[in-house]
Formats: sequence, C-alpha cells, structure tokens
Amino acid sequence: MIRSVLTSLALAGALAALPVACAEAQTTGPVVTDFKLANGLEVVVVPDKRTPVVTHMIYYKVGSADEPPGKSGIAHFLEHLMFKGTEKNPSGRFSKMLATIGGQENAFTTTDYTGYFQRVPREYLGDVMEFEADRMTGLVLTDANVLPERDVVLEEYNMRVANSPDARMGEQVAAALYLNHPYGRPVIGWRPEIEKLNRDDALAFYKRFYGPNNAVVVIAGDVDMAQVKALAEKTYGAVPVRADLNTRQRPQEPTPVAVRQVTLDDPRVAQPSLNRSYLVPSYASAKRGEAEALDVLAQILGSGPNSRLYRRLVAEKRIATSAGAWYQGSAVDATRLGLYARPTPEVSLPDLEKAVDAVIAETIQDGVAADELERAKTRMIADAVYAQDNQSSMARWYGTALTTGSTVQDVATWPDRVRAVTAEQVRDAARAWLDKRRSATGYLVKSLPAGEEKRS
Amino acid sequence: MIRSVLTSLALAGALAALPVACAEAQTTGPVVTDFKLANGLEVVVVPDKRTPVVTHMIYYKVGSADEPPGKSGIAHFLEHLMFKGTEKNPSGRFSKMLATIGGQENAFTTTDYTGYFQRVPREYLGDVMEFEADRMTGLVLTDANVLPERDVVLEEYNMRVANSPDARMGEQVAAALYLNHPYGRPVIGWRPEIEKLNRDDALAFYKRFYGPNNAVVVIAGDVDMAQVKALAEKTYGAVPVRADLNTRQRPQEPTPVAVRQVTLDDPRVAQPSLNRSYLVPSYASAKRGEAEALDVLAQILGSGPNSRLYRRLVAEKRIATSAGAWYQGSAVDATRLGLYARPTPEVSLPDLEKAVDAVIAETIQDGVAADELERAKTRMIADAVYAQDNQSSMARWYGTALTTGSTVQDVATWPDRVRAVTAEQVRDAARAWLDKRRSATGYLVKSLPAGEEKRS
Repeated sequence: MIRSVLTSLALAGALAALPVACAEAQTTGPVVTDFKLANGLEVVVVPDKRTPVVTHMIYYKVGSADEPPGKSGIAHFLEHLMFKGTEKNPSGRFSKMLATIGGQENAFTTTDYTGYFQRVPREYLGDVMEFEADRMTGLVLTDANVLPERDVVLEEYNMRVANSPDARMGEQVAAALYLNHPYGRPVIGWRPEIEKLNRDDALAFYKRFYGPNNAVVVIAGDVDMAQVKALAEKTYGAVPVRADLNTRQRPQEPTPVAVRQVTLDDPRVAQPSLNRSYLVPSYASAKRGEAEALDVLAQILGSGPNSRLYRRLVAEKRIATSAGAWYQGSAVDATRLGLYARPTPEVSLPDLEKAVDAVIAETIQDGVAADELERAKTRMIADAVYAQDNQSSMARWYGTALTTGSTVQDVATWPDRVRAVTAEQVRDAARAWLDKRRSATGYLVKSLPAGEEKRS
Repeated sequence: MIRSVLTSLALAGALAALPVACAEAQTTGPVVTDFKLANGLEVVVVPDKRTPVVTHMIYYKVGSADEPPGKSGIAHFLEHLMFKGTEKNPSGRFSKMLATIGGQENAFTTTDYTGYFQRVPREYLGDVMEFEADRMTGLVLTDANVLPERDVVLEEYNMRVANSPDARMGEQVAAALYLNHPYGRPVIGWRPEIEKLNRDDALAFYKRFYGPNNAVVVIAGDVDMAQVKALAEKTYGAVPVRADLNTRQRPQEPTPVAVRQVTLDDPRVAQPSLNRSYLVPSYASAKRGEAEALDVLAQILGSGPNSRLYRRLVAEKRIATSAGAWYQGSAVDATRLGLYARPTPEVSLPDLEKAVDAVIAETIQDGVAADELERAKTRMIADAVYAQDNQSSMARWYGTALTTGSTVQDVATWPDRVRAVTAEQVRDAARAWLDKRRSATGYLVKSLPAGEEKRS
C-alpha cells in the first residue's frame, strides 16, 4: 500500500488546475449530485459509466494545521493508524479484502484534510463503505500497534524529508513564510515531536476530528444514485454523530511586513535552486474573483514554456534551466503562490533572483497582454476538461474542494469564473499580493559561501 | 503607573548580567533565605537594611510562551487586567493606597514570567501582601472593565511596536529564528489576535496559571525573617492551592538547519542596522557550564569598547558606529545569543555582515585570549556586585532566576561558575552554537533595494 504525505508543494502541483467541470462538461459531462445523511455526512456522486469500476474516497476535514501545539505530525500518524483495525474488522482484513478482489487503496494527509481512497469493482462498493464506516469511530489502538507504526513514520520522514534537499528546503521556506499560522509547520511533523507521539495523542485527535459530521464521501464510477443512497444510509448512516466535534480554530497570520530569505546547504545538492512563496488568499479566503485572478496569474507567470518566467529566464536570458510558478488555491486559510527556478552553472542565485524580481516588477507595472491572458485561461479550462477522463482525479477534486471551503456548485462554475477574469484583475492581483514583503525566498545550495560554513 | 512588556531584547539588556551574588557577597553581602508555604508559594527574602523601605515582588511562572494558539498577547493583557480589582478590593483601591503612602508600583510580562512590583515604607509590607494575595485568585472581570483595557493594550502596541522600527525588526527576527517554539511570537501578541482577546480568554488563562503553587514572592529590604514568615502565612497562606494548574508544555524547536535573513524597510529608519540572533541553550536548558561559557562569550564578543565586535568594526575598520552582543541566559527553553551593529553611512549591510561573520569565524577558529577572558569575567562579576546596591534589581534577579528554572543556590554560585569558565569552553561554545545555520539576521533599512519596493 502506498500512502503519501502531500506536502504543500506536491499539493500545489497536483491540484494546480483544481476545479473540474467546464461549461461543456455541465451539459455533456457528468451530472454530479450530493446529499447529506442525518448524521451530517456529505456524500458526492460523480457518475462515470465507462468501466464497471468505482472510486470511493472519504475525506475528513482535518489536517496538520489542526494539530495541537507540540503534537505536529499527529494528523499524518493517525492516517497510518487508521489501518490498525477495529473490533469488528481486525488489522489487515480490509486491505486483504481489497487485495483479493484486485482493488487499490491509498491514503494521504495534507494541511487541511485527510483522505482515504479505494478503487474496486462496482459490486464491492457496499463492502468498502461498511469497512470505512466501521473505522470512522471503531478504531482500536494499543501501544503494541501504535509504537511500531511510529517507527514506520520516522522512516518515512527520513526517506521523504531528511534525505530530500528539496523537501527540506520546502519545509524551511514554509516555516519562514508563516509566522503564526500552522501552515508553516510540515505536514509530516517536526522530527522531535513525531518521536514522542503516542496512543493517547492519536486517540484524542481521532475522537476530536473523526466522525460523520466532519467528513465527505466522494463516489465516482458506474453507480446509480438510488443505490448509493441506500448503501450510504445502511453503512455510514448507522454511525452516530460526533457531538463534541471542534470546528477549526487556527491562529491566523498577521499582515506580513518583512522580506525573508532562507539559505539551506546540503552536500547532496547537484544544482542549486531558488524557491519563493508569497502569502496570498485562497479560494476560501479571497474576495470573489480574486483567487481566480491569482490562479490565472500563476499560469501566466509560470506554467509551461510560454510562461513569462520560462520565456524570460530560460529561453531569452538563458540564466536558468527551469522556471515556473504555482498557486495552491485549495486551502482553508491564507495560502501560497510560489515561484521557482534553477540557475545555469555560471549564474549566482542572487543574480537569478534579480531576474525573477524583474519579471514580477514588469507584471505589476505593465499587467498582462490579451493574448497571454486568453492562452492561459483556455489552457486552464482545457486541462480541467481533459482531467475529467480520470475517475480518481474527479473524485479527488471534489473531495479537496468540499474540505477546503468550496461547494459542488463552486466546482461547476469554476470554468465560467476563470473565463471572466480580466487583464486588469490579473494585474491588480499581482500588485496586491506579489509584494516581496509578503514572501520568503529559499536558496538551496551545495555549500554555504566562505565564512559561513560549518566549522565543527 | 508604568507597566512594560519586556521584549526579549529588552530583557536581554536588563538581565545580561543576571546573577547577583558573588563570592565576596556570600560573605559580606546579604544572606538570602527562601521558604515555601504549605500551598506551594515560594518566598525569598533579601535583607537590605540601608533604608526603611521594602521591595515586594510577585512573579507568576507564566508568560507569553504559555499562551494557547490564537491567543497571543493574553499573558500581557491579563497583567493589565490584574489591576481591575476584586470583590474585596474594588478597582483602584490598591493603587490608591500605594499613592497615599508614597509607594511605587509596576508590572511586566515576558516570555516566561509575569511580575508585579511594589516599593513601600516597610510598615506597609503586610498591606501589600494582603492586596496581592487577594488578587491572586479573586480578580473580578466583566466586559465593562475588560474591553476598554484592550484598547489601552492596542494603544500600547501602536506606541511600542507599530511606531518603533527597532521593535518591529526584533519581532521579525524572533519569528524567523523560532520555527516552532512560542518564543518566536511577540510578548505583546500579534495585533489581529490582541484585537479579539476577551474576558473569557483572560479568565481561562488566569485560572490556569495564577495560584500560590505557581508563584514566587521576593521581598527585599529592611525586614526580618520571622516577621515576613508571619505576614506570608497570614496573607498568602490563606490562598488555597490551585489544584488544576498546568505545568508548562511548550512545543520545542527542531534542530535549526537553514541560514535565515529578514529585511524590514521602514521610512522612519534614520540609520540602518543589522541584528542577528542565534538559537543557543539557556541556563535552564544547557549542560552544566555551557550557559556560563555563552555568557562569557557574549561579553567578549560584544560588551563595551574592548569587545571584539566593537574593536574590529567600530575602532579598527571604522565600518560601524556601534556594535555589540548579548546573551539572554534566563529562559526556560532554548534561548538567544544576539549580535548587532549599525554601519557607517557608506557601508552596506551585506558588507557589514561579512565583517561580523569574520569576527565570529575568527573566534571559532582561534578561540579567545587569556587577558580578554579574565577581563570579561572580572567585569561580569563586578557588575553583579555593583548591582547589589539596587534593592529592586536584587529582587528582580531572584524573581527572574526562580521562574526560569534556577534556584537561590544557583544565583549564589554563579560568580564561582563564571570564574571557572576556561578559554577552551568559550571556544567550544562558539564552535557549537555560533553556526550561521542556527541564526536569523535582520536588516533594518529605510527602503528596500530597487525592484523590491512596494508598487501599490
């Protein structure tokens, strides 16, 4: 089984073109329905009749940003522990069933949500729902099954963070960007805190956040509505509402005021890189239209070989081997627009940064051209249409949207809202949010300049 | 009445030479006694017979680092609210009594402790103790007395932080240095969070942390022990133990790995400055001898015109108008050693920083000379002896020590421990802790370089 911590960066990449339904899709695409059970569980059904297969995902509205202080990593650790079994279904039974029927499963934790995924022949949907409903509140944790799993998580930390200069850099830039909000804390946790997580921490977190009234189930595939409703009532419907659920209360960021820069040296770095994040509004926190403009802005700045950063730094000036931008729109709170570039061997990071700053300054000053605006919007909408071909992407988009403050309707209207973005809105977004004081810039280098190297 | 938020930096300045008793003092100086009441209250008595005046201080073991997430500023806000009166002593009665007898009062909040101070003719000590014992658990808060005081605190924020480029810089450097520990958060709080603090927040914090078993009373002056004991039993002794007191549980810092740099521009800056903090152990968190070595190291690096930074940057190279260093040894958790310098008009901050780095590199490489070591230690111990002349400094030192993990005995043995520091220990401390990866450096400038200025 493959489970993953989606770092913010990975998330941004995966969900850059988050919303899915376009105007065409609204007429020719799937008719997405959602309903709520009496216990508060939201269920979304995305019909896809092409193969007799169904994707089942359950998303809990809890992520690393909801962790109590000192317990970083507990959201992700609990995701691992969710596979430890219940009284009714001891450890391994669920996975074994899936293996027997040729199904797939996966799980992932982000800053805002935690998701569990299965893909099975459609006749097994009811079984999957029963297993998931059972472990929603029935998880049995003991020191014997918790402590060895912590070693697994620490090993994952070593593999994914400690041994990855890029991941370490991402961790440090996020920490420098967020002064108060827990988005500044790595999803997998700070190592010294992961080492101390225990059964009580996991159970407390589980009881606080896992329940039907804090979850969204997305079912994509060859199913019909009546059947799904009946199965959902029978399985999830039997889970009592979690009365003492806490709503999310996270410390918010103060207005950023200082330009931040972080230099990380790692002998394993083959090629240095520059990595900047700006603090910007998310779809959930922005004024209407502003997140769409930021989405388009990121596309124009840094998506593909026609983007401004690529053209200027890679194609024209030949001072970078790669360059790009991303916007992590799907987030509950103030989120990030990121830029990155890798210099050619003879170029220094400060010089590369000056060139990046010039591209931003020009965009702020002169705005964007009509043709690049149109190209960007067309590309974003086409990507969304294209992505409808993938059943699990579809399920994932709805799950992400519904656990980060958006609605099914928001997903459906997204293409129209992108289409309505004007050049002026894009320039205004750049002007309002791409102020360097709102940013942290990471330099990833093989070794520190002379005079700064480690002596001991 | 003057109340102050001691920022970490101010604290460092005030307490650089924290401990007080020296070897001479142990024989010729005051005999400091301490005892505990049955309810857990610790009382320290520092005799000082020179004038018929007594300094009374009560220190609670709670500071901004103990605040719940999202409630930054509540420790300091509560300090203000402690003057709002009780059922027995309505608002103003305590202060009025002090004014009538010609007494003084003050209060302050830091990351680790909150203190209340009175200086009165000795015959009023019992009254002061009675008032303080009464408000230890009897505080009456209503929206009517809480909300206007929040405006007072916000005004204090404007005056002390918003209108002070140096304070804003200090805030940003601390935030960049601490990625996880609440020392990274300003003592006065983040403005958006201060704005939302209310009566319930204050009461919850008060009930959680204020009580005899979480406080230290220091009495310095013309008193005798038997009398103080009797008064303490009669006043504080009647306050019931707070059974549900939480011990401090703070998220700790992961090992720092990246060099951080913060640039803050402010049009009110007359002269730019450089301000660096390293994450280092405190007296409470260090291995025996290590904090003493850091204390001596800071003295050698940056205390006075004979210090390395001053000599090199100001006297010899003439690239700075001032330069220095400090060590904030009195802290519960990992603390800071700081450097600062102001360049002469023609020198850039990066060039100044290179010169600072060179002084550090040299110290790490070659260690310190016997004569500068002796001069530093002699000066530190002399400062401590000299400070014994000040009754309130004496009281303050004991209060600080006893609320940040030290004992009366630690204060008494400090001069001997400093005297024992060797050149090798100082070099080892520099080598172990003055790694730039453990630091954040602030540049305070009038305006950002071209290309980074705000456009909108």
